[in-house]
Parts: sequence; C-alpha cells; structure tokens
Amino acid sequence: MRFTHRAETFPVNTPAAAQIFTVVLSQGPLTRLELARRAGLSPAAVTKAVRPLIEAGYLVEDADEEARPALGRPANLVRVDGGRALFLGIKVTGDEIIGVLTDLCCRIRAARHVPLTDRDLKVVLAATADVVQELLVEADGLGVGVLGLGIAVSGDVDRGAGVVRYSPFLEWRDVPLAELAATTTGLPVTVDNDVRALTVAEQWFGAGAGLSDFAVVTVGAGIGCGLVVHGKVVAGAHGVAGEIGHVTVDPAGPLCHCGNRGCVEAIAGDAAILRRIRETTGVDVPDTASAVRLARRGVPGAREAYARAGEAIGRGIATVANLLGPERVIISGEGLAAHDLFAEQIRDAFAAAAFGSAAQCDVQTRPLPFEEWARGAAATAIQSFIRADTQGAP
Amino acid sequence: MRFTHRAETFPVNTPAAAQIFTVVLSQGPLTRLELARRAGLSPAAVTKAVRPLIEAGYLVEDADEEARPALGRPANLVRVDGGRALFLGIKVTGDEIIGVLTDLCCRIRAARHVPLTDRDLKVVLAATADVVQELLVEADGLGVGVLGLGIAVSGDVDRGAGVVRYSPFLEWRDVPLAELAATTTGLPVTVDNDVRALTVAEQWFGAGAGLSDFAVVTVGAGIGCGLVVHGKVVAGAHGVAGEIGHVTVDPAGPLCHCGNRGCVEAIAGDAAILRRIRETTGVDVPDTASAVRLARRGVPGAREAYARAGEAIGRGIATVANLLGPERVIISGEGLAAHDLFAEQIRDAFAAAAFGSAAQCDVQTRPLPFEEWARGAAATAIQSFIRADTQGAP
Repeated sequence: MRFTHRAETFPVNTPAAAQIFTVVLSQGPLTRLELARRAGLSPAAVTKAVRPLIEAGYLVEDADEEARPALGRPANLVRVDGGRALFLGIKVTGDEIIGVLTDLCCRIRAARHVPLTDRDLKVVLAATADVVQELLVEADGLGVGVLGLGIAVSGDVDRGAGVVRYSPFLEWRDVPLAELAATTTGLPVTVDNDVRALTVAEQWFGAGAGLSDFAVVTVGAGIGCGLVVHGKVVAGAHGVAGEIGHVTVDPAGPLCHCGNRGCVEAIAGDAAILRRIRETTGVDVPDTASAVRLARRGVPGAREAYARAGEAIGRGIATVANLLGPERVIISGEGLAAHDLFAEQIRDAFAAAAFGSAAQCDVQTRPLPFEEWARGAAATAIQSFIRADTQGAP
Repeated sequence: MRFTHRAETFPVNTPAAAQIFTVVLSQGPLTRLELARRAGLSPAAVTKAVRPLIEAGYLVEDADEEARPALGRPANLVRVDGGRALFLGIKVTGDEIIGVLTDLCCRIRAARHVPLTDRDLKVVLAATADVVQELLVEADGLGVGVLGLGIAVSGDVDRGAGVVRYSPFLEWRDVPLAELAATTTGLPVTVDNDVRALTVAEQWFGAGAGLSDFAVVTVGAGIGCGLVVHGKVVAGAHGVAGEIGHVTVDPAGPLCHCGNRGCVEAIAGDAAILRRIRETTGVDVPDTASAVRLARRGVPGAREAYARAGEAIGRGIATVANLLGPERVIISGEGLAAHDLFAEQIRDAFAAAAFGSAAQCDVQTRPLPFEEWARGAAATAIQSFIRADTQGAP
C-alpha cells in the first residue's frame, strides 16, 4: 500500500492558487487570460500560481491547435493533467459499500462493490478497508499516488469535524468517521453527506461547473437536494439543508417518517410509490423494478402513483426555484430509471408552481449510475486536497 | 441643494478596505486585533486601511474604558463616526412615498411621507424629488454631505442595472429608475427590491449583523422573504428569490393571484385574512385594523383567520429552514401589529414542520415601523457608497 503525501508535492498554499487550480480543474482548458478573468485575479497572480503547478506536473500548457490564428502564435491552453494523482471515493449504504478509484479530474478508473450484512461501525470500517485495499492495488498498477479518500454517508454529517452526527439509515450517532477511517487506511479522509458530495461532483466536474447558483435533486429511496448558492455548497447552520423531501405538498397527504403529512418524500420516495400502488391496485409489488414494470404495462393505479410522485417532485423543485432562483436544477438519482413515467408531471407541476421568471430556471435530468455516489465522495477528497494548505486564510 | 461627491473624500478603494470598513460598521466598535480576525485579514492590512479612514474622519479610535485592564494601556476600539456622512432612503408604495434621512450608521435623522395619487412614473419621480428636496434641507441644517440615495420598490428589481424589471404594484415594466432619479436629484442612486433592501439593513445594522446565513420574513399586504446565504443577499439568477409567499401550504386552499392555490400569501396576506373573515363571519370588515379588533374581541371566525395565517407563515418559515438551515429567521412587517393573534401558531407550525436540527433555528420577531422600509433603501445606498470604488475587483 503506497501513497504520496500531498504536502510534499502539491504547490498550492494560498487561497489564490487554490482558486486558480480549481477554475482550471472545473472549467479548463483555458488560456491564461481567460483563467485570470474567471478567477477574478491578475494575470501576474495566475503566472505565479501556474508555474510551480506546471513544474510539479499538475498542470500542462498546450498550444490550442483549433484556435490557431491565421498569423502569429497560437494561444496556449492550460489544463489539469488528470493522470497526475488518484483519489478514492466510498459510498456507504444500508446494504453495500461502493468504492471508486478516480483520477484528479474525477474520472472513474476502477470500481468495487462489497455487500454489507451489518451496519455496525466496526463491520463497515472493515469492509471499507477491504474496498480501499483492492482499489489501492489497482492504483499501484497505474503507478500513481493515491492522495485522499472521501466517504459519503446519508444523514447529518459535519464535514469540518469529520463526524457523522446522525445517520438514521445506518443508525449511527456522533461517529468520528474521518479519524477512524484515516487510522485504518492511512489516507487523509474527508467525510460528507452523500447528496452534498454529489453536488460537489456536479459543481466541479458536471452540469454545475461554472455556475454560481444551482441545485441537485436526487430521486430514489429518499428525495434529496444539494444547493450551491454564491458558488458554495449550502451546509446549514445546524447541519440540516436541502431537505426538499420534507417540503409539504399536501397537508392531507400520506404520513411521512418525519411526522408530518404529504411531504415530497412521503409521495415520491420509492417506498411511498410502492405503498400507493399496493393500496390502489391490491397487487403486492415487492420492489421498484416491479412497480415500474406495472406502470409501463399501463396499470392505472401504478401509472397514477408515478404521476403523483412527479407532481410532488415538480412542486418541490418549484419551491427551491421560488426561494433561491438557481440558474439550473439537475434532477438525478436511481429513481430516474422511471423517468418516462413522471417526466411530464415534473415539468408541468414545476411550470405551474414556479413564480414569474423563476420558471426560466433550466431543469435538466442526469441519469445516475450508483457509482456516481462514490464518485461524489471522491470529488470531496479532491476538494480537500486542493484546499488543505490554504485553510484558515480568508 | 448641496452634497459632497464620495470619490473626493472616502478613502476606500480596495475590496480589503471595503471589507474592513463594513466589519467596523456592522459589528463595531472593535479592537484592531478583533477586526483583523473578523475580516479574515492581517493586522497590517487593517492598519493600512484604517489610517486614511481615521484621517478622513470616517473612523475614530477611542480607549475602551470598560475593558481597561488593571495594569497597562487600555485596548483601543475602532468605530464608525456615524455623523460623518448622510444618506437618503425612499420607499415607493402604491399610495405614498416615504423618505428618511439617515447617518452613516443608518440611524434615522428625519422622515417624510408624501401621499401618491397616481402611480405614473413622472408623478412618482416628481414626488420623489420633492421628498428628497425636503430631506436635503434637513441635511443642510446638520452641515454634513448627503452621499447617496437608495430607492426601494416591490417586485423584480435588477440592482446592478438600476432597473425596475417589473413591479406589479406600480404597474411598471423595465423602468431605468436609478438613472432617472440620479438625473432629477443629482445624487448617486441605488435601486433595489424592498424586501432585499430591508434584508441589507438587518445584515448591516440589525439582527443579522455578523451572521452568514439568515432570513428576513415580512408579513403584511404580501408575505416576503430576504435571504442571506454565505454572507450575501440572494438575488436569484432570474430576478426571483425569497418568494416564501408562494410556498404551497394547501393545494386545496384559496386561489392566489399567482394562479396556484393555497400559497402562504393566499392565506396569510392582509387581503386573504379579510376575505376569510368576511366569508366565515358575514361581517364586511373594511380593513386590517377592523379585522384585528374583531379577532381581539374574540369573534371565532376572525380568530380562526389569524390562526390559519400563523400556521401558513410557520410552515413557510419551516420550508426556508429545511432548505437553507439559516442561523436565524427575523419576522417583521406591518402585519406584526397582529402578532399576538398568530405568534403561537407560527411557533407551533414551525416546530412541527422543521426537519430535525433545523428546528434549532432562532426565530425572532421585530416590529417594523413603516419608515423601516425607507431605512432599508438608505442601507443599500450606504452599501453602494462603500463598495463604489472597489467594483470589478474580486
């Protein structure tokens, strides 16, 4: 098990340098001039930050062949060498651990799934160590150092402290997961809420790159939401934020596990859809795949359950748009496998409930393979790596 | 009509200096050391910014008599000399113009109300010029320059462009108000949405000072919301944000002017409360004052209308808390005159609908004299004054 410690090799130690590297990573390749403009810094600051990063191999500068002017030198483009470093991302769910090995540009190089028979902390830590070990062997084959590990968990996670405050799904309370996983793996560890981690991946490497205000809405077992406002992920002063699943759609609706009635999640979460189909059709649908088959076959009760779910999600998204006015909302999650069954209802309910020009918000869907959750965790590790030496500065 | 142009006298021309002055203005008096800590800058940067500001009379440094140590020199405290400059704030409503003269610390020195018989742009501009003229005479008596004018209007306002995009109340579309008012008054003009202006006043001079995440909820004719996230007021990518009034409380509820049913505003706005009381009691209540009297007398239909309003407001606030996790929510607005009639329902509905630790959010109420709206406008003028020479920098 080998890895290079970041501090020895990564020449980013000021907020300006971290800012410049982040802009290249999320929006590059860019000319130096455009980089200075987007980072809001002087060309001199860019030159100062870029030189040691090129020397250390994190950035490369190529002639832009496509943009070659008729006369004169072509403009050079600065980009990140994704192969220069590797990172690990782990998503812990109730029944499995998913791990990915990514490069510095968060491209997945290898993935592993390990079933989880127990949610006990020791069992989870041991399984995590196994997945990490397997992925480190893969990394060894690539001959590049692994510089960080991200772990994503659903629930209330204090990223700064590295502590899982409360994860109802895992039945964990106040678990210092970052410290424990750092001890078992020997890697620098970042722990974050799973939806926020996915949001970081979209912000840096996805449909949110370059946007200062957007939302990610995840549809599946739960209905989650990650928010980026003024360029930063919203964490909530008390650890709660993005709870679109508990926006009320209908105060007379079905009871939610949170104690209220008619929350988005109580209508559009996987379990809620199954319950509704059972109630209206009398068929004992065992899982989401059967529910989707039933609805696609045109069974009215099943179709109606998905239509109601779509309407609830559309209203939830409109609430986010009305309060925050994001440029874009990215709908994602395993639940998108049933997208054909509720896309129209999401769109119509959003359009009806969006207030004035909030309806101009660009609502996109993005299929989400399960590895994406683990990739989100890797994105948080990349983020921590870039910022590690610049903490405490403004 | 005299005023001093800012550029001649205000020695703030870098983002760091603006940041330092803002921290003293909103959180001072402070020692230089504490100021450096809160601004996230070095003591040297503080010394560099503070010296010319003291020389120009905007800052003063006093010995802190209360904190005098038993031995040694007392720590000096830096504070803003509020009397060093004056600003004007104007709120335009459907039937009057309210103007205030404030000092640099946004303390009201004089106020004027002028009734408005017409919402035509020319009439409003002429009335604004009259109010400005009267307040400039007051300022003349104080012998200090007026350095800026803020104008607050309800609706979709593009502050950066100085344009009222759409104000349903005034029936204005795409009015370049900042430019027009600058021409008629000769002052630098800032135009902003009224709720956002009030939020700026709370952020700099009120219950939001020093907080990075909070919300202002205004209760009255409409139900509005100003949001501060990561230390900045949320404006919305498409001009819409903070539309708590259009959060759905009950999809089977009363029709809202936005076309949906059961919005917070359709239940808790002044007109909605009057309508509900008329429906349930048969009494033709002419205005809010009569409605409040009826409810205080214990008439069941009137009490119930206020109770429903409180519940809707509480649910709306819980939605904000669940999505953004603010540290504090400040409830304000003319509607607070009826606070005794719905405070309990706001509190209970918030507690029931807040998800997990979002319930820890500190919900406060703050009475709002009508001049406060104009004071909010003055706060935006003070903000523009401080930032004017630092625009374009990051």
